[in-house]
Amino acid sequence: MREVVEKKVLSENDRLAAELRQRYREQNILCVNFISSPGSGKTALLEKTLGSFAPGTPVAVLTGDLQTDNDARRLMRYGYPVRQIVTGGTCHLDARMVERHLNELGFRGPGLLLVENVGNLVCPSSYDLGEAAKIVLLSVTEGEDKPLKYPGIFRRASLMILTKTDLLPHVEFDPKLALENARKIHPEIDYLALSSKTGEGFDKWLAWLAALQQKARQEAPAAIS
Amino acid sequence: MREVVEKKVLSENDRLAAELRQRYREQNILCVNFISSPGSGKTALLEKTLGSFAPGTPVAVLTGDLQTDNDARRLMRYGYPVRQIVTGGTCHLDARMVERHLNELGFRGPGLLLVENVGNLVCPSSYDLGEAAKIVLLSVTEGEDKPLKYPGIFRRASLMILTKTDLLPHVEFDPKLALENARKIHPEIDYLALSSKTGEGFDKWLAWLAALQQKARQEAPAAIS
Repeated sequence: MREVVEKKVLSENDRLAAELRQRYREQNILCVNFISSPGSGKTALLEKTLGSFAPGTPVAVLTGDLQTDNDARRLMRYGYPVRQIVTGGTCHLDARMVERHLNELGFRGPGLLLVENVGNLVCPSSYDLGEAAKIVLLSVTEGEDKPLKYPGIFRRASLMILTKTDLLPHVEFDPKLALENARKIHPEIDYLALSSKTGEGFDKWLAWLAALQQKARQEAPAAIS
Repeated sequence: MREVVEKKVLSENDRLAAELRQRYREQNILCVNFISSPGSGKTALLEKTLGSFAPGTPVAVLTGDLQTDNDARRLMRYGYPVRQIVTGGTCHLDARMVERHLNELGFRGPGLLLVENVGNLVCPSSYDLGEAAKIVLLSVTEGEDKPLKYPGIFRRASLMILTKTDLLPHVEFDPKLALENARKIHPEIDYLALSSKTGEGFDKWLAWLAALQQKARQEAPAAIS
């Protein structure tokens, strides 16, 4: 019974996500969905990313949490449109929440839409938000075995970002082993390591994002490109 | 429709959890349920806790993960009965899983049953496992605002353990603020700070656990105490 309802919920979400994907295509919006455990550094990554953009860059942010608008307040300081999605008890963002808040935000492309999911390495991975890419963050304090223990998100993510590399001297963590584990689950997953605190590795992340935007532009329908 | 099924699932879980609670009472088992984000140090805490017990202490461990038996293998080295609960895709332990694995483990009281939940700060908090106490772990790398953002588990936990205090010199984290936030959600929550790496603060944790066992013994039905 439970499985039947879950399937129904996911298939309804897939339908709405397909609509979002169509809308992103028509409006030349590149949507990226950031997923990680609580406290892995999603908001810090977004802060530094927003801070690196030239003024006037067309970008908007949706950020999800069970409670509080802390993250939206942190992210608003960079001058771009930001909306907090407070899910109440819900452990993930779904396509309906994104659609509603995107409408209320009034963001139309072309441009970049950054979606920070609820901090949870499990449930958000099952909910398609129409994004061009899921990005999974893993911090160096969490242990190298997380890709094996939480395979769903590592299988679905296009990129794994190892965060908080400034803490590497203080923890027992082998980045090579973490990447090996991720590639056991998903051999083609891209990989970057960075510190939002020191900025180490940030140039590669911005280059990865720029390449994804470039690719999306090339694939955009001629009529609106 | 979804809410109806969720309510049904939770009420069925509550029924099974009440049976477990009754069984724990009859067998003088003290069950403790550890909940945190992935990588906050649940397994490290359990390793050091098991290592601190006098040989022959009556204790058993159930440890949950979506995939892998890594944690069970780590914990088995201490010579106590340990069983891995692999949940597949499920983001939490429920009372039925605990009942089944407890039967297969063949653990009968009196004694201590340590249950390490799936790494997830959201969903496990809704599933009663018949435990005497939920314990929430928060590591110093995760940020002070987590109790406000994930209030469900901090409201339900008897104790909040701040972990990885050895990393405090290397991160911007104010333990006092984290505790203030937790007490905004749950004014009576107990609090401890420790490092499973250095052992700092571990004596207080063991004393807290001993006090809980003492209290349970005093409350145990006379016929079997």
